[in-house]
This record gives sequence, structure tokens and C-alpha cells, in this order.
Amino acid sequence: MKTWLDLPADDLFGVDNLPYGVFRAPGQEPRVGVRIGDRVLDASRAAEGTPFAQAWAYPSLNAFLAADPETWRAARAWLITAFADESRRAEIEPHLLDLAEVELILPIEVGDYVDFYASEAHATNVGSIFRPDADALTPNWKHLPIGYHGRSGTVVVSGTEIARPVGQRKAPSDPAPVFGPSVRLDIEAELGFVVGGRTELGSRVGVAAAEDHLFGVALFNDWSARDIQAWEYVPLGPFLGKSFASSISPWVTPLEALRYARVPLPAQEPEPLDYLRGEGLFGLDLRLEVRINDTVVSRPPYAEMYWSPAQMLAHLTVNGASIRPGDLFASGTISGGRPGERGSLLELAWNGTEPIELGGGETRSFLADGDTVTITGWAPGPDGARIGLGEVSGTILPAR
Amino acid sequence: MKTWLDLPADDLFGVDNLPYGVFRAPGQEPRVGVRIGDRVLDASRAAEGTPFAQAWAYPSLNAFLAADPETWRAARAWLITAFADESRRAEIEPHLLDLAEVELILPIEVGDYVDFYASEAHATNVGSIFRPDADALTPNWKHLPIGYHGRSGTVVVSGTEIARPVGQRKAPSDPAPVFGPSVRLDIEAELGFVVGGRTELGSRVGVAAAEDHLFGVALFNDWSARDIQAWEYVPLGPFLGKSFASSISPWVTPLEALRYARVPLPAQEPEPLDYLRGEGLFGLDLRLEVRINDTVVSRPPYAEMYWSPAQMLAHLTVNGASIRPGDLFASGTISGGRPGERGSLLELAWNGTEPIELGGGETRSFLADGDTVTITGWAPGPDGARIGLGEVSGTILPAR
Repeated sequence: MKTWLDLPADDLFGVDNLPYGVFRAPGQEPRVGVRIGDRVLDASRAAEGTPFAQAWAYPSLNAFLAADPETWRAARAWLITAFADESRRAEIEPHLLDLAEVELILPIEVGDYVDFYASEAHATNVGSIFRPDADALTPNWKHLPIGYHGRSGTVVVSGTEIARPVGQRKAPSDPAPVFGPSVRLDIEAELGFVVGGRTELGSRVGVAAAEDHLFGVALFNDWSARDIQAWEYVPLGPFLGKSFASSISPWVTPLEALRYARVPLPAQEPEPLDYLRGEGLFGLDLRLEVRINDTVVSRPPYAEMYWSPAQMLAHLTVNGASIRPGDLFASGTISGGRPGERGSLLELAWNGTEPIELGGGETRSFLADGDTVTITGWAPGPDGARIGLGEVSGTILPAR
Repeated sequence: MKTWLDLPADDLFGVDNLPYGVFRAPGQEPRVGVRIGDRVLDASRAAEGTPFAQAWAYPSLNAFLAADPETWRAARAWLITAFADESRRAEIEPHLLDLAEVELILPIEVGDYVDFYASEAHATNVGSIFRPDADALTPNWKHLPIGYHGRSGTVVVSGTEIARPVGQRKAPSDPAPVFGPSVRLDIEAELGFVVGGRTELGSRVGVAAAEDHLFGVALFNDWSARDIQAWEYVPLGPFLGKSFASSISPWVTPLEALRYARVPLPAQEPEPLDYLRGEGLFGLDLRLEVRINDTVVSRPPYAEMYWSPAQMLAHLTVNGASIRPGDLFASGTISGGRPGERGSLLELAWNGTEPIELGGGETRSFLADGDTVTITGWAPGPDGARIGLGEVSGTILPAR
């Protein structure tokens, strides 16, 4: 779609994208912003008088997430018109700020955060590495989207520095656990789904209704200390190996902006139980790119994910668990079937046996202090356009 | 300690107790209350003009939890004087409401909720039942307090009805998973620790500093669907088997009120790593009682718990995970070494092989629809007094 802004035709943040975030202009309270090109619309001020302006005046997206899908659609339609219609220019332009002049903060107050494990290639790789004597996929894997709760209080915005975590680890050859900084610090390139709306305890969100609660997506890096995780995770799952930090993009792309990226799911065999089946299930053709410092180390294809977002949300609530605006669930590591498509260093360097090259003679099996990891991504838009996902980046500091 | 209120000497909620909760009087906004006997002090109004009155005017304890331990101590000293000093009667008495006239709501906005697994008897029993061919305790159990994150959005106040959860289960003999209401619905009698204060990402709370963040305790029932849990929990831990609901007492007993209940920990062998060691580590001599309908089915002794609350909090944060006011961690099921002291039906009826008797010819291996589970407890106070813990209760509704 055309806009009165002077944007290149291939801009990743054109008028067909319009992701939401929360910005702080110098000396002002944070509030909701909408990205276009390299600018941020001060949304609540630009939209004064509309039914959604008030929800945009808060320092997180949560008030807007508490609204209904009709409101989300009306708000997006208003924004598209505001940028597409030349006659609105004089009214809108004064509310555009340069991205470089504002601080982007955590876009949501995270309610509950659940991490899934929805990539068959990833689960197969991890199973092969950690449990070489057993089947790579556990018997439940193709029957339900495996997930677990993570720490919502340590979800941080892109750019936050990540101190190398400290904790217990024990290699099989160690006689007793040892304590110290993690020596197997890893990334997990994931997609986060931001949940809107609210349900009551005891009710469920079926696959057909899931779209009403899937507000949007954001790139997500679930930092993982593999050595801490390996020692702690039996029998109750990952805890300190994950809870030190997870980074999220400041920009939440509405699901509506990804309608050209919908693709069929991979075949699901065996057929899942009824509550995980439905006509409209879709995957998303998102192309990710993972960089460590200046080197692209992987290009994970989201389209290969086994479970759809609607299936994940339906499963999450099938037991009657309620949802709140600001809940967040992540896809789990996105790995494609080919080696250059793996979303973690554990897989890329195959548990340290095949270190990857970063150029300049540097190699990595896991992250080194000072490394900066950046995940970017895009999706097909209308007429050959690309819808950019906001990047998520973080630099590793030495252990404190 | 004496009070001008007309309370029996053995009242569980005397002036040495004074737990905090949140009440709603008819037609009014919820705010913080303090229980004494069968009455509730309208705390923010009674304390008008004090430095803590404003924090008590909120509809949760979170604002008060955000204060520092000095403020908590000053507030408690003010309350004790208010009830002990006869000259304060005329000032205070008008702010006392009958418990029967108010609604008690969830006392905290739960930040992150972590469930530990700190009872050696419980872990041993569960290991023996679920993994009969392996060692009952996993190799990590005595080296670290095992824990995992649960769903904070489904922590509900005592009295909330609990719909039987629905989901997938698969007995080893089933060829494929089946879908339906859980047929192995269980309880877990636990103690919840309410966290106050805030730390920064990347910092830790050592065992010595833990007390500054341990505001108080509340009885907790971590409802568990054993069949759903058994099918889903490998490899990433419990998810839907737990996330449908956890019930908490409306009354949070300050840790200060439990100073006469401090007891040495059981011997920890092997000695844990340095960050889990300290001079002042203590257990708590809390005596719990679990009733199903009218029958006492268990009397779990908290004093036998292997890991101290300070060790649990130190472990939770050793990797740099930050904490927020309103975070909650629970002890895990409290089971003593004797059969009548087990904190779950899984253990009490030994995986269904020894159903327990409820009287009237009724037996239970797991919960039936209509069952009401009530957990009560008390701790030794000064001069032979007892400090009552607020009860947590819930009734099972049929699956929706």
C-alpha cells in the first residue's frame, strides 16, 4: 500500500506492517508507539478522540491487549488510513518521532510466559544429543505441543545486556556438582505470541477461537545455560538454565499484518486429538536470521514448525487455565531440517563437536563474553513487499 | 501478649499473629486488612497518617510488599501496640469489621510463581511410585532445591471452586492418548512464601539476605491432575497437570510471627555448595492438617522439610534472576516420614493401591466431584500460644 511518507518501496516497516511498541521520549512518560520506516507514531496523541487512543496512553500494550479483536482491527484500519491518505498528512506528521530519538522499552507487562517446543527438527536434534540411547522424540511429542512455564519477570527488551549466569553444573564425569559461570551459554531463536483478551478460570479457548486472542508476534531469544539445565531438569523441567533472561523485540507485529504469510502446517501424523484439530489452522512463513557479532550463523524457517499457534493456545487452556492480556507464549527454538537452519548453538555446533566459524579464525561452540546475538526476520507481504519483524539483540557480559 | 479485645487465650489469631489479607466490604473497594480473632482491621483507615497507611489502601498486598523490611517491622509494631494498649481502643475499635461481613480476595497480585520439591519424604515416595526401577531421588535432589515455574494467573483464593480439569492422558497400556476429565485429581499440601522487595536482573539474593525478602507465608494447595501430568511431563516438566488452579489462603502470616516456630533443618548430607550454606538457616515447626470433607486424612509436619526457605530463594536467584514484590514460591508437597503425614493422595493411597477411608464406608484414591479439601495449620507462639495459619479450602466441581 502507498503512503504519503517518503519510504522506499522495499522498506521492511511500510504501511502494511505497523507494529506496536512502547517508547519513551526524553523527559516524558512511556506510551504506545507505532513504527513506520524509521519513525514512531506517538499513537495516543495522534489518535486523540478515537476509541483506542486512551488504551495507547499507557506505558505498556496491556490496556490495548485487554480490548477485543474488533477494536484491534478498527485501530489498525485507522492507522493504515492515517498513513495512506495524503489528506491526513498535516494532522499526523507532527506526531511522528525519529526512532533514534526515543528509547524503546519492554512492550508488554508479561502475565504468564509459556515456552513451547514446537519444532520437530529442534526436538529431534536435542533428543539425539541429550538422550542418544532413546528415541529422539518422546512418545508424547506428536500428540501434544509440549510446553512449560518460564519466568515472566525476566523477559527483557532487546538491547538489555545479559550477564552470564552462574550456577551448578555436573558433567557425567564429575564426581560432584561444581559451581561457577555457565560454560555452555546458548541462544534459542524463537517467535513469541502476545496474547490479548481474558478468559475465566475453567473455560477453554478452542482452536477456532484462538485467533481472537492471538494479538501479534515478536522475535524472541530464550537464552539458555545448557550445563545448568542438563543438571537440574530431571524430573521437573528447565528452571535456572532458562530463568536468568529471555529477550524480546520491542515491536509486536499484529497477526493481521502476517495474513500474506499464512501457510499450511506440515502434515500432522498421527492425527492429533479433536481439540487440536480445525479447518483454519495455519503456519507462518517467517524467515529468521541469526547473527553472532557480524556473522550470520543460521536462517531458521518458521514455516516448518509442527504445531500451529492456535493449537498451542488451545492446548494451553484445555485444562481450564485462564488467560490474561499480556500473557506470552513462545514457539520454542525454531530449527529447520537443514544444518544452516538450526536455531541454537547446541544444534549448530552439535554439542560442541562441530564448532561454527565466525570469520577471522574465530569459532564458537557456545557464546563468549562480549558476543552480541541479533535475530531479525521478515514475512511476505502484499505485492512482493516484505513485513519486517522487529529485531531482538543482546550482548553477553562476563559473570558478575 | 494481652489485648483489649475479648479473645480467648488460645485464639489462633491473637495479637502475636496478625496476618495480612485483602478484604472487600459491601459496596467498597478492596483494601488491606489485618485479622485478629474473627475480626478484620480496616488497616489503611485505622493507620491513617502513618508511613504505611497508603500502601494498605491498595487492593492487594503488593504495594506493602514493595516496602523494605524496616517498614514491615514498624507496621507490625504499630499493629501490636494498637491491639495491646488499652488506651488505643477508642481509636482502633471503630475500624474493626466482622470477618463474616467481608469478602476475602486474593491477597497478592502474583508475579512469578515457583513450585519447589523440598520434602525428602515426598520426593522419595513419588520417585518410588513413578520410577520404580530407578533410585527414588534423582542424583541432583540433595545438591539443589529442585523447582519449576508454575502459572501465576491461576493462583486463586481459598473458597474458589475448582472445575475438574480436562486433558490428555495415556496409561502405559493404552495404545494412544485419550481425552477427557482427569480421573486422578489430587491435592498437594504446601506452604507458600510471599516475596517482598525487588532486585535487579543479574544480582542474587544470598541465604543471609533472604530474610529481607521473605515477607510471610500462606497455606497453599497445588491441585494436580496426576494422569495429565504423567503423560506430559517428560522432558520439560509439569504443565497442564498443574496449571488449571492452585489455591492460596487469604491470610499471609508475617515471618516475624513465626519466630517461635524456627527449628534447625534436618541434617543436609552431602553438604550443599557454598551458596546454599549459612549460619542462620532455619526450618519452621508448622503443623498442618488436611481434611477431605469431614475427615482428617493427613497431618503433614513442615519441620521435616529438607531445604530452608532461604536456600530456596538463594537458589532461585543464584543465576541472576530478579525478584519482584508479589513473587510467590511454594515448598512443594509437605510429607512427613510416617504414612499419616503425607501431603498428597498419590502418596496417602499409594498410587491407588491403598484407598483411604473417609468414614461412612467412603474411600478415596483420588478426589471425587463434590469433595471439599481444607488445609489448616498452626505454629508454636510465645508462652504456649498457637499462631494459626489461615485455611485454604476448595471444592471440586464436575468437569465442564
